[in-house]
Amino acid sequence: MAIRLVVLGTSCSNPTVERNLTAVALQFDGNWFLFDCPEGTQRQMMKSGVSYMRVHSIFLSHFHADHVLGLPGLVATMAMHGRDAPLNVFGPKGVKEEIKKVLGLALMKCNFEVRVKECGRGKALEGEKFTVSGVPLKHGVPCIGWVFKEKDKEGTFQREKALKLGIPEGPLWSRLQHGKEVTANGKAFKPEQVMDYSKGREGKKISIVLDTLPSDSYFDAIEKSDVLVHEAAFLDKHISRAKETKHSTAKQAAWVAAQTKAKKLILVHISPRYKKNSEVENEARQEFGEVSVPEDLAVFDV
Amino acid sequence: MAIRLVVLGTSCSNPTVERNLTAVALQFDGNWFLFDCPEGTQRQMMKSGVSYMRVHSIFLSHFHADHVLGLPGLVATMAMHGRDAPLNVFGPKGVKEEIKKVLGLALMKCNFEVRVKECGRGKALEGEKFTVSGVPLKHGVPCIGWVFKEKDKEGTFQREKALKLGIPEGPLWSRLQHGKEVTANGKAFKPEQVMDYSKGREGKKISIVLDTLPSDSYFDAIEKSDVLVHEAAFLDKHISRAKETKHSTAKQAAWVAAQTKAKKLILVHISPRYKKNSEVENEARQEFGEVSVPEDLAVFDV
Repeated sequence: MAIRLVVLGTSCSNPTVERNLTAVALQFDGNWFLFDCPEGTQRQMMKSGVSYMRVHSIFLSHFHADHVLGLPGLVATMAMHGRDAPLNVFGPKGVKEEIKKVLGLALMKCNFEVRVKECGRGKALEGEKFTVSGVPLKHGVPCIGWVFKEKDKEGTFQREKALKLGIPEGPLWSRLQHGKEVTANGKAFKPEQVMDYSKGREGKKISIVLDTLPSDSYFDAIEKSDVLVHEAAFLDKHISRAKETKHSTAKQAAWVAAQTKAKKLILVHISPRYKKNSEVENEARQEFGEVSVPEDLAVFDV
Repeated sequence: MAIRLVVLGTSCSNPTVERNLTAVALQFDGNWFLFDCPEGTQRQMMKSGVSYMRVHSIFLSHFHADHVLGLPGLVATMAMHGRDAPLNVFGPKGVKEEIKKVLGLALMKCNFEVRVKECGRGKALEGEKFTVSGVPLKHGVPCIGWVFKEKDKEGTFQREKALKLGIPEGPLWSRLQHGKEVTANGKAFKPEQVMDYSKGREGKKISIVLDTLPSDSYFDAIEKSDVLVHEAAFLDKHISRAKETKHSTAKQAAWVAAQTKAKKLILVHISPRYKKNSEVENEARQEFGEVSVPEDLAVFDV
């Protein structure tokens, strides 16, 4: 199933004329999943066609201002437009308190349920076809990287066989694909009657690592990502500043991608001091070839 | 003295692709004064060259989400860039509590003083050359319109006379202009020696009325504005919706401008449902000719 990534912003610390602060939206199976929500995110969503009414869950890395201050405005807009679907918010320890503060701002009336979950290492959310897991990062405050994993397909659905057996297209097919028996026209059918288990497919994996010193402590979790989105706040010439503020350089982020065997690396969270994406990209390419330093609102289909 | 107005945003309720939420910046004598601070304001300031480090005071109309949610991000950016000058924030009753909440968000470290003052009708701030006064509006929650008034000049300073008398250019001139005696080179001088009191000039007046039902309760305060910035959330065809939500239509705002003898009317806070500024402007023009419905980032020199 196609996964779409929209890079809503690419700056760190503060927005600039050209860049909003870093956030990433991921579309899967009709829903949007939002990673971080700095100021201006709702407008970036509007500009890129990411529906704020179809945001299933928001995953926060940590509570620094440049990662979360778009949350109250986004919630206010959702509420004003009559959202009634619950909204899930995941974050590190403290996220419940932070969300309580956000919902107490600006005379806010929120008619939908906001379900907040404090997370650490391991599975945060499981859907029928995906999981999202957290992995602690190294940023001086509780900070979490997120791994979106499409579930592996154990076999290929053979539609011709299903039609020949008289099983109508629709939810029954989905149940068979998920290994469940179904009944159609009074007859019972087993998955193996329509599935070819010789042809499986590994689910895609997207890892989103925002705000961290490079560290092998999160390597296991993000190994073999189809796409690794990693922060690169600094260039190597400012590595001492990166260490002080607990951030990565472009070269270090590329090293992480190489070490963890990522297929593609997307660098975001670039300091406003760097004016040219090519400068960041060239540094990263010394360590890892498949790298992109996108403009705001870039779209990647995985 | 020149007054510059920058319309930072023109939308209401939520931002759109084209419009940010309504805020207005006013430049006078080297300082910026900000009226409302919705989400995205700091980036609009960057785009239009309004220096967030030179913001002298922020005046909030009320605490609805579309008027204040840019405040935490703006304060965070000021703090990150080492602002040490105090920041004044004025607003209706409750503003102290609201600012406390804002400063408690997102692990914020604010190294400068934020001086908060709850205001009603009357003078909120007085500078050497200006005052800002509040006037209660009708919006269902405490809501304040603001009147920026350049002090009247009681006379014209005659620089040739001052130079001839041996009074050096600089702060002494300013003191004489403000009616104070000075001493230069051991000699005392009185203002009337260098001022021509036959040639005074009335100070300019800018009124900013955001979120209100039209009402003559605020007419006195805004009378004879050089520029009246007024909300026009709706068109007259949606007047019942305007009444329900305690807003003005374009026609009503123009009527206010005519009744109060404004020289120029700028309409902002336009509902996202209206796509064409001309539609709003044409309606207003039925009541008041000197009207403008600007795009975001429009600049007006008064």
